[in-house]
Amino acid sequence: MDLQPILDGIAAKIAPHLSEGRVADYIPALARVEREQFGMAVVTCAGKTAQTGAADTLFSIQSISKAFTLTMALGKIGNDLWNRVGREPSGSAFNSIMQLETEHGIPRNPLINAGAIVVTDVILSHRAERGSRGSGDAGIDAIQEILDFMRLVADDPSIAIDREVAESEAAHGFRNASLANFMRSFGNMENPVERSLRVYFHQCAIAMSCRQLARAGLFLAADGRDPISGRKIVSPSRARRINAIMLTCGHYDASGDFAFKVGLPGKSGVGGGILCIVPDVAAIAVWSPGLNKSGNSHAGTLALEMLARETGWSIF
Amino acid sequence: MDLQPILDGIAAKIAPHLSEGRVADYIPALARVEREQFGMAVVTCAGKTAQTGAADTLFSIQSISKAFTLTMALGKIGNDLWNRVGREPSGSAFNSIMQLETEHGIPRNPLINAGAIVVTDVILSHRAERGSRGSGDAGIDAIQEILDFMRLVADDPSIAIDREVAESEAAHGFRNASLANFMRSFGNMENPVERSLRVYFHQCAIAMSCRQLARAGLFLAADGRDPISGRKIVSPSRARRINAIMLTCGHYDASGDFAFKVGLPGKSGVGGGILCIVPDVAAIAVWSPGLNKSGNSHAGTLALEMLARETGWSIF
Amino acid sequence: MDLQPILDGIAAKIAPHLSEGRVADYIPALARVEREQFGMAVVTCAGKTAQTGAADTLFSIQSISKAFTLTMALGKIGNDLWNRVGREPSGSAFNSIMQLETEHGIPRNPLINAGAIVVTDVILSHRAERGSRGSGDAGIDAIQEILDFMRLVADDPSIAIDREVAESEAAHGFRNASLANFMRSFGNMENPVERSLRVYFHQCAIAMSCRQLARAGLFLAADGRDPISGRKIVSPSRARRINAIMLTCGHYDASGDFAFKVGLPGKSGVGGGILCIVPDVAAIAVWSPGLNKSGNSHAGTLALEMLARETGWSIF
Amino acid sequence: MDLQPILDGIAAKIAPHLSEGRVADYIPALARVEREQFGMAVVTCAGKTAQTGAADTLFSIQSISKAFTLTMALGKIGNDLWNRVGREPSGSAFNSIMQLETEHGIPRNPLINAGAIVVTDVILSHRAERGSRGSGDAGIDAIQEILDFMRLVADDPSIAIDREVAESEAAHGFRNASLANFMRSFGNMENPVERSLRVYFHQCAIAMSCRQLARAGLFLAADGRDPISGRKIVSPSRARRINAIMLTCGHYDASGDFAFKVGLPGKSGVGGGILCIVPDVAAIAVWSPGLNKSGNSHAGTLALEMLARETGWSIF
Repeated sequence: MDLQPILDGIAAKIAPHLSEGRVADYIPALARVEREQFGMAVVTCAGKTAQTGAADTLFSIQSISKAFTLTMALGKIGNDLWNRVGREPSGSAFNSIMQLETEHGIPRNPLINAGAIVVTDVILSHRAERGSRGSGDAGIDAIQEILDFMRLVADDPSIAIDREVAESEAAHGFRNASLANFMRSFGNMENPVERSLRVYFHQCAIAMSCRQLARAGLFLAADGRDPISGRKIVSPSRARRINAIMLTCGHYDASGDFAFKVGLPGKSGVGGGILCIVPDVAAIAVWSPGLNKSGNSHAGTLALEMLARETGWSIF
Repeated sequence: MDLQPILDGIAAKIAPHLSEGRVADYIPALARVEREQFGMAVVTCAGKTAQTGAADTLFSIQSISKAFTLTMALGKIGNDLWNRVGREPSGSAFNSIMQLETEHGIPRNPLINAGAIVVTDVILSHRAERGSRGSGDAGIDAIQEILDFMRLVADDPSIAIDREVAESEAAHGFRNASLANFMRSFGNMENPVERSLRVYFHQCAIAMSCRQLARAGLFLAADGRDPISGRKIVSPSRARRINAIMLTCGHYDASGDFAFKVGLPGKSGVGGGILCIVPDVAAIAVWSPGLNKSGNSHAGTLALEMLARETGWSIF
Repeated sequence: MDLQPILDGIAAKIAPHLSEGRVADYIPALARVEREQFGMAVVTCAGKTAQTGAADTLFSIQSISKAFTLTMALGKIGNDLWNRVGREPSGSAFNSIMQLETEHGIPRNPLINAGAIVVTDVILSHRAERGSRGSGDAGIDAIQEILDFMRLVADDPSIAIDREVAESEAAHGFRNASLANFMRSFGNMENPVERSLRVYFHQCAIAMSCRQLARAGLFLAADGRDPISGRKIVSPSRARRINAIMLTCGHYDASGDFAFKVGLPGKSGVGGGILCIVPDVAAIAVWSPGLNKSGNSHAGTLALEMLARETGWSIF
Repeated sequence: MDLQPILDGIAAKIAPHLSEGRVADYIPALARVEREQFGMAVVTCAGKTAQTGAADTLFSIQSISKAFTLTMALGKIGNDLWNRVGREPSGSAFNSIMQLETEHGIPRNPLINAGAIVVTDVILSHRAERGSRGSGDAGIDAIQEILDFMRLVADDPSIAIDREVAESEAAHGFRNASLANFMRSFGNMENPVERSLRVYFHQCAIAMSCRQLARAGLFLAADGRDPISGRKIVSPSRARRINAIMLTCGHYDASGDFAFKVGLPGKSGVGGGILCIVPDVAAIAVWSPGLNKSGNSHAGTLALEMLARETGWSIF
């Protein structure tokens, strides 16, 4: 299958829709991103890349980071993670606190905010020994470890954190502070809330391009092993399970709709990016900053629907 | 792949677990089913069948019927169905009414009780013209039409309704009557509540064996066309979308867990049956009456985990 | 205190507000009541009556009946009632079902719909032996017993049920049918749901005037004894406790606001009536069909605020 | 009425019940309070005091402070307060966050934690000009102003804050931090969350005896004017309205039960104290550290039931 004409065709068909969504405006650094942008990249398990539009433009990956920190935390404590976070769809908005109350501080899954904050807390508690390279600051070490992991899986040492976004998140992060304090009151946070949140805000502020992001997700399409570098990231069964969680929980309360329309595991971010996995075939990243009312990229979702239809890549 | 030894191996490994679950006891007709039974059948898109254990024993399909009535309703009114029922996981128990209140009488998805009752109401409103063959009773006609559909997709005219179960359901169906009246108060039921419920209780009381059920679901594994009879049931894209809904919503508030562990679209019933779809490969039916605490077959779920692991059939 | 000029003054001040509310329109028989009507009556423990406006016009007492059926049920089974219904404010709308789910079929209090239906179910189960006077129909006997009680406390044998309203309630009572079936599924209804609902719809359809209603409630202001007839209805402590429940729960999710503004125990009905108790002093009934957004009489609430302010009758 | 023998009789009857409750243990400073203590004091509008037991022992007033800060905030911004907090019973536990989500950051009433934190935030925003006496730290000034108010209404300059309790609250205040951050995310907190919480934790840590507390609440029983000093604290209608809120909301999700059994406006604290108002008659304070399952003093509630019964002071 020649992906290039398919991607270019999608870009052409998407163009009229780029003005339909609404850019995230809860922090200034995201609010001023120009809405009418679109990029898409596909990296196949065979190592080929196709891309269209602004596929090399950096954007804030935001919640897409949750798929990667989930991978890291499972590597650190394995199935013990499931004592602290569930793996069921929440049926609620990304920042809902109601279920936390009825379920005693255990978040529904690791891809909603509350769950991802627990995951970050795990990484902080079990961060790698850094020996003489350590900063002496646990938060900085954890941020560095997450960044190192993203650089490793993307095979690109240039990936960096947008510090302005990170600071802006922290300054407006009252809802996340509420979630974290709530879980802390149930004993489901091990580190000081401020420290875990600081790491969380930084992971969300990692800036990547579609090309980098598709490359970074490729191990999830290839049984946990990066098919280009040959590096083993996770076991095959764990990779499939992470994909399963992305399918059922990756788009908050629009996860069912995304599965229905696109039929692929995916994780979206409020920066307008979406990472999609086609098991055994490819990883896809798409980006367009205008969001639909569920907080997922409007044009990005449309583009993935088109791509899934034209390639027959739906897993169903 | 030779499925027969795999199935027989699973049956052997499952045997010690048959006493672990708890048989549904909300109606006498189900409560007296012997717990320690197990059957499994696989029908492949190539037309081959493998089975083990009590795969020819009839059991009450209960909620598994929802996957088939969903197919029928989509055939009748297409996407208009989504005005009356959502397609998101509920994150709640099968008979929860809370979301109905906050979401104004629109059930989350067609595979929880409330949603399935709406689907049945659609079938009743749009039942086929039966001309001189009609019974003169809309409810009976709708029940007959559902039964005819099951016989068609299973290619087996012997399939029947267990009338004792149907009557028992009706006599104890207060929760479902509550759901239906609640939706009626929001205008989301078109027919008299008693009539729609009567049809619903009868569809749940259809008795089938694992072999029949796997055969009946085969069209969902084969792009909507029964690969044995060649009969087209639904379009390829609709078949895939029904599978997507089964994956995200097919096991109530354990749907995420089932996707995580088994990795296949499936629909369970309180009678202990589970239908699973392996897109492009096969349909699987398993049955064991002991239920886990989420109301899904305990041994059946274990068996599907084993089968998915040994065959590599996870869609992820 | 000369009440007559106070009442007349209130009627004059209320006149411009009679067009502000919205008449209940969920059943035709209520929807066609003319909105711009107002009546008010006060009967004191000393046996004096003052009234203004349409105080002799009959209206549908609706939920005000709940205060009287609560009195009856406590007379029949005493504190055992509290095993089946709570006595806490619900913080929710009159017909909410959410709390029923989280609280396993036990309604919050006897003055919301669910709780009042349980109370009616109690009356039905423990209806008086009627011997040869019995109708042979338990529902009819219970309806008659409730009507007899209203005639007794109002000292007026002319009080009757508006059968058109009762039938209209039954024909549109899907939400109440949902509540009753829900409680039945938890074992908190003893009689057939249809029968209890039939009695409930009839008690709501009792037609009374302000004068009759204030007279009927007088025993609650006088330590449980009708100060005019001398008839003892309930014990002093029970009368005070019924008043307490009216204060905390009598106006659904506006109960706190009513206590704040008026400062008297009261029970409102969707027909536009409100009964208020001034312990040791008087009973008040007011009626105006236009409802505010909480479903309580708009002009009636304003009139009670004025009356409480001018008389200093607030219990606080 | 000679109160002394009544109080002494109650103390004798209460003695066997002092071991039945459970001392609050969420902070060490409260957990080590000896359970089997009991004190009670009544101060009448005529200026007489009766007391029994440990009525001069200091205890942490905790949530009882909410009635006083509510009084202060109403004095500062009047009815504008009701734009930021409701006045309906919550039907939920004292620290519930669910309603905050469905009601967009507006707490149900000023006597649950979330509402009281908003009230404290108001006091902080509108704290008195302190001129040269100001500390230069807004939080310290607000704490001082609250303490000054308590000293004023209790007519006792010795009242102080237990700093160990205040610090302990702050160290364990994750749930309150969650509530405050949640409201901040909806714009319903004006000051930095940490600052408002610091003031809140200090107001809860005020230590008073039953005698001081009854004296402090006396203005609420006397139309807003301290009948002993003659000092006007609030208007008569405001005093009555504060009493109304205490009656409907003063005991969290046991408010209805307290109204039912005691029949007086009251506010409880987790330190085991309860303040009760008998309009036009007296203020009562009772203290016993063992709590019932709703978090209110077990022996204190029993003692108030006895007192209300023996005096006939129920407002109903």
